[in-house]
Amino acid sequence: MSTIAFIGLGIMGSPMACHLVRAGHTVIGLDQSPERSAAMVEAGGRAAESIEQAVKGADVVAIMVPDSPQVQSVLLGDNGVFAYAQPGTLVIDFSSIRPDVTVEFAQMGAERGLRILDAPVSGGEPGAKNATLSIMVGGSEEDFAAAKPILDAVGKTIVHVGTNGAGQTVKAANQLIVAGNIELLAEAITFLKAYDVDIDAAVQVLAGGLAGSAVIDQKASKMLQRNFDPGFRIALHHKDMGIVTAAAREAGVVTPLGAVVAQLMSSAVANGEGGLDHSALLLGVERLSGTEGEPTR
Amino acid sequence: MSTIAFIGLGIMGSPMACHLVRAGHTVIGLDQSPERSAAMVEAGGRAAESIEQAVKGADVVAIMVPDSPQVQSVLLGDNGVFAYAQPGTLVIDFSSIRPDVTVEFAQMGAERGLRILDAPVSGGEPGAKNATLSIMVGGSEEDFAAAKPILDAVGKTIVHVGTNGAGQTVKAANQLIVAGNIELLAEAITFLKAYDVDIDAAVQVLAGGLAGSAVIDQKASKMLQRNFDPGFRIALHHKDMGIVTAAAREAGVVTPLGAVVAQLMSSAVANGEGGLDHSALLLGVERLSGTEGEPTR
Amino acid sequence: MSTIAFIGLGIMGSPMACHLVRAGHTVIGLDQSPERSAAMVEAGGRAAESIEQAVKGADVVAIMVPDSPQVQSVLLGDNGVFAYAQPGTLVIDFSSIRPDVTVEFAQMGAERGLRILDAPVSGGEPGAKNATLSIMVGGSEEDFAAAKPILDAVGKTIVHVGTNGAGQTVKAANQLIVAGNIELLAEAITFLKAYDVDIDAAVQVLAGGLAGSAVIDQKASKMLQRNFDPGFRIALHHKDMGIVTAAAREAGVVTPLGAVVAQLMSSAVANGEGGLDHSALLLGVERLSGTEGEPTR
Amino acid sequence: MSTIAFIGLGIMGSPMACHLVRAGHTVIGLDQSPERSAAMVEAGGRAAESIEQAVKGADVVAIMVPDSPQVQSVLLGDNGVFAYAQPGTLVIDFSSIRPDVTVEFAQMGAERGLRILDAPVSGGEPGAKNATLSIMVGGSEEDFAAAKPILDAVGKTIVHVGTNGAGQTVKAANQLIVAGNIELLAEAITFLKAYDVDIDAAVQVLAGGLAGSAVIDQKASKMLQRNFDPGFRIALHHKDMGIVTAAAREAGVVTPLGAVVAQLMSSAVANGEGGLDHSALLLGVERLSGTEGEPTR
Repeated sequence: MSTIAFIGLGIMGSPMACHLVRAGHTVIGLDQSPERSAAMVEAGGRAAESIEQAVKGADVVAIMVPDSPQVQSVLLGDNGVFAYAQPGTLVIDFSSIRPDVTVEFAQMGAERGLRILDAPVSGGEPGAKNATLSIMVGGSEEDFAAAKPILDAVGKTIVHVGTNGAGQTVKAANQLIVAGNIELLAEAITFLKAYDVDIDAAVQVLAGGLAGSAVIDQKASKMLQRNFDPGFRIALHHKDMGIVTAAAREAGVVTPLGAVVAQLMSSAVANGEGGLDHSALLLGVERLSGTEGEPTR
Repeated sequence: MSTIAFIGLGIMGSPMACHLVRAGHTVIGLDQSPERSAAMVEAGGRAAESIEQAVKGADVVAIMVPDSPQVQSVLLGDNGVFAYAQPGTLVIDFSSIRPDVTVEFAQMGAERGLRILDAPVSGGEPGAKNATLSIMVGGSEEDFAAAKPILDAVGKTIVHVGTNGAGQTVKAANQLIVAGNIELLAEAITFLKAYDVDIDAAVQVLAGGLAGSAVIDQKASKMLQRNFDPGFRIALHHKDMGIVTAAAREAGVVTPLGAVVAQLMSSAVANGEGGLDHSALLLGVERLSGTEGEPTR
Repeated sequence: MSTIAFIGLGIMGSPMACHLVRAGHTVIGLDQSPERSAAMVEAGGRAAESIEQAVKGADVVAIMVPDSPQVQSVLLGDNGVFAYAQPGTLVIDFSSIRPDVTVEFAQMGAERGLRILDAPVSGGEPGAKNATLSIMVGGSEEDFAAAKPILDAVGKTIVHVGTNGAGQTVKAANQLIVAGNIELLAEAITFLKAYDVDIDAAVQVLAGGLAGSAVIDQKASKMLQRNFDPGFRIALHHKDMGIVTAAAREAGVVTPLGAVVAQLMSSAVANGEGGLDHSALLLGVERLSGTEGEPTR
Repeated sequence: MSTIAFIGLGIMGSPMACHLVRAGHTVIGLDQSPERSAAMVEAGGRAAESIEQAVKGADVVAIMVPDSPQVQSVLLGDNGVFAYAQPGTLVIDFSSIRPDVTVEFAQMGAERGLRILDAPVSGGEPGAKNATLSIMVGGSEEDFAAAKPILDAVGKTIVHVGTNGAGQTVKAANQLIVAGNIELLAEAITFLKAYDVDIDAAVQVLAGGLAGSAVIDQKASKMLQRNFDPGFRIALHHKDMGIVTAAAREAGVVTPLGAVVAQLMSSAVANGEGGLDHSALLLGVERLSGTEGEPTR
C-alpha cells in the first residue's frame, strides 16, 4: 500500500481519492477549496493544508486539476510539488492538458529524479464514482507498472499507450470523438423531433444498432429531459478541442469534423453555455434550426 | 407460423431469410440472381422464379433491396407485389429508402387492402447473421403487433417508432450518426498515427470510455488492418446521406456535421471507393492529410 | 425592333422590361399582381391581362419568375406560353431554376417549334435598374445571336456559355460563390468588430486588395448599417443553394464550403430571415458568436 | 525625403524598395541572400551588409519578412534594429504576423523611443510591382501621418485602421476572405468542368456579376492554365489561417467557413503543395472530387 498525496478534489478528483482510501492506501488530499476534502476525509483520508504538507513522505503524488496553468502551478509553483517531493516519487497527472506541455513537465521532473506519468481519464463523473474510468497512460514501462495498482483502484480500462505525452495525445483523440458523437446525437434528435416520430423509442433503437455508443447511453436522456447539469462542462471540452485542433494542425492531420465541432463548441461558449454539460451542444443545433425554446416533448 | 415471401436475398436478406426458416416459417425466397437463393434453400426454404410465384398464398411479404427504385419495381412493377398479393397481406419492407417515398407506397398499398410496414434495420452483416439487428418500424400498432413474431426472428432491438415513414426517418438519423462516428474514428486514428502512440492500445482505451461505440467495436480493426471488404458499402451509405440531407433540409433542421460527412462520403464515391466498406472513410482522411499509401502499422 | 411579351414584373423584371421599352421594343407586360405593371406602362409599355394576350403576335417571350414551378406554370399551364406562342418564337427565360428542369422545358419547347434560351442573370436589383446585369446564356448559337440585341438592352456582360441548361449551371456556380463571399464577409466583419479596429476603414482597405469583390462593394454597407431590405432574398438564395448542392452531388463534385454555406443559408431561413437580403447572413454569424442584438457601431 | 533602411528584399520587398528609391528616398536595403539586393541597387539604392549598417542614420526602418520569428530576429536579435536604431526612428513593419505579437513588439519598441507601425499589405506580387498595394496600418495617428508619404510610394489604398495590432487584425480578416474566395472559385470551376459548359465564357460572366472579385480577376486564369507558380505561397497562407483561426477563437468569434478553409489549406500543405500559389487550392477540390490529373481544358 502507498502513501498518496492527491491534489485536486473536484467532481472527478474527490470520488477518485475516496476509492484510493477504500483500496487501503494512505491518502492525504488537498484542494484550494478546503470544504471539497469532506468526502475524502469521511472515507478515511486526511486533509492537508499545503502541497508541502501533502507531498512530504508521499510515495505517490496524484494530480487532477482543470488545465495546464493549474498543473504548472501545482508542479512548478513556489511551494509546488517539484520543491518538496523526494526523488523517486511517482507523479501521476490525471489532468487533461496539452501533450507538448506534458512532455516538458515530464522532462523537468525527470531532472529532479521524479517519475512522471500522464494519465488522463475518460468516463466522466459516473466513471469516477464507479471506479470504471478509462485511463490512457504515457510514460515509461516501469513507471506504468509501478502505478498500475493505484490506477486499478479508480479505473477499469487502463492502458499504457506510449512515452510521456502519449496519454494526452490519446485523450485528445478521445475528446474529438466524444465531442463529435454528442453533436451528431444532437443533430439526430433535432432531426427526429422535426418529424412525427416517437423520440424515446427512436433513441432506444438507435442505441441498439451500429449507431450505439456510450454517448447515447449517457447523454441522450439528458438531452431529452433538457437537463444540462454537468457532468463535463462545455468550457473544459472547448479547452480540449483547442488542444486537439492545435495538435492535429501541428502534425499536418486534417480533421474536417473535428474542426467543425470545435467551432460549434466555441459557439456554445460564446453563447454563455460554458458552464453546462457538453450534451448542451443540443442548444446550438436548436439555435441553428430556429427551434430553441421549444419544449422537447 | 406464417408463409413468407422474401424478396431480395443479398448480404442482408439471405441470412435474414434463413433465420425465418429456422424459426419455423414457410419461406419462399426470390432474388434477381437465382444463385443467391442457395443458403436459404439449404436452410429449408423454397426458391421462387417470379414475384407472382413467391407472393401467391403468402401471409407476409418481406422485402430487402438496395434503394427506392428497386422497392418501386418490386411493389409496383408489371408483375409486382401489388399485382399479386391478396388483400390483408402484411408487407414488411426492410429496405432503407426515402421516408416520403415510403409513405407513398404505404398509401398505395392501403388502397389495395395491403398492410405495409417500413422496417429498416441497423447492425450490418453481423447483425443479420446473428439475428441481432435493430429494427425501426413505422406503421400502425396492429400491423406492428402482427409483424412482431417475424421481426423477433431476425432482430434483437425491435421498436415501433411511429406511423408509416417513421421507421425510415429513424433509419436516416441512424445513418447520420454512423457515418459521423466512422469519420470521427478515421480522423482520430489518423491523428494518433501521426504521433508516437501505441495505436492498438489507444483504440482499446478509447473503446472503454465515453468515446466508446459500436462503430469502434466493429470498424476500428478493419481500419487498423486496412481490410475494407464490405460490410456496408460506401455507395449505399452515400445514398443514405442523400436521404438524411434532403429530409433535414426539408424540415429546416441544420446539421453541420451531417453536411460535412455527406461531402466526405461523396468524395469517397468520387474516388472510386463506393464498393468498399464505409470504414474506408479512413482513406479520405489520409488523402486529405497526405498520408495515403503509408502502411498503418 | 421586336415585339416582346414580358412575363413577371417583380423587383428584377420591372426595370428590365422598362429598359426594353426604352430601347425601342414593343413590350407587352404581365404579372399576377397587375399593379406591378405600372412602371412599365409609364415607360411606354402595354399591360396584358393574360398570357394569351401577351404572347399572341410576340416575336419574343421573356420570363422572369422566382422558381421552377412558376416557370412551369407560365410555359405549360392550361393557358400558358406553349399553348399560344407561334412556332419560331424566341423564349428567353431569365429565371434561375434547376439546370435539368430547364433542359426538359427546352426540349418540350423545341417539339413545338419554339426556340428557348436559359438566360439567368446576376447583379441584383442595381444590375437590373442600371442595365448592367451579367447574363449567362444556354442554348443554340443561332438563338443566342438572335437574342443578343434584346439582352444588350438589359445587361452588360452577356455570354453564351453552352447548350440549354448551361446558363443555369453557370448561375448555380455564381450563387455558390456569392453565398460564400457574403458569409466570408460576415465572418470577417464579426471578427473585426470583436477587436479594436476602425471598421469602416477596415472595409475600405479590404475592398482595395485581393479580398476585394462585388460583394464587399454592394453588401458591406448593408451589413454595417444593419439594413437588410432586399435586394436578393435569403429564401431565393436558399433555393439556389439547393440547386447547386444537388447538381454538385449529381456530378460527384465535392464542395466543402458550398455545403457549409448551404447549411448556414438554411439556418437563416429556419430562423425566419428568409425575407431579408442575403447580406443578413451576418445575423447567423452573430447568433453563433453570441453577439446578436449588439449594435454594429 | 527620408533615409530608409529596407530589410527583406524578397518577392514583395524588392519591388517595394525600388519604388521608394524612385520616389526620391535614400534607400539602404538588406537581405539574408545578398543577390536579392540587385534590383534595388540597379534602381539606385545601396546594399548594406548588416542591420547596423542599414539602420544607422536611417529615419525610417521598413521590414518585409515572412513571419513572427523573422520579425523578432530583425528587431530583437543581438545585432537587431532595437540595438542600433536611434530614438525617434519610424519602424514600419510590412510583414504579416500575429496581432498579439505585433503589440508586444510595439510596446518594446516604444520603451526604446521607437515609433512602430504595423502595416501589412494585400495585393500580392502585382500589387508590389505596380505600387497598388492595399496597406492596413495600426499605430498612432501621428506616426501614421509621418509614414503616409512613404506608404504612398508603394500602395494605392492606405488606411489607418486603429492602434498597434489593428493592421494585423485587418490583414487576418483579409486572408480569411481571400482564402475563402479562392476555395469557392476552385469549387465553382470544378463544378463547371463537370458539366458541358464553356469554362472561359463562364468565368468571364462570373467576373462581371455579383460573384466578381479580385480573386477571379487574378487567379481564375492561373487555375484554368494550371499555372501555380507563386504569387503567394500556400505555406504562408497556411500560417495566416493559423493566425486568424487563433485570433477568432480567442475573441469567441465563430467562423465556420474560415475553419473549413483552414483545414483545406492545411491539407494542401500536407500534400506537399506549400510551395505553390494559393490558387492551387484547386488541386484539393480535384483530389476530393476524384478528378486530379485530368486536363483542365
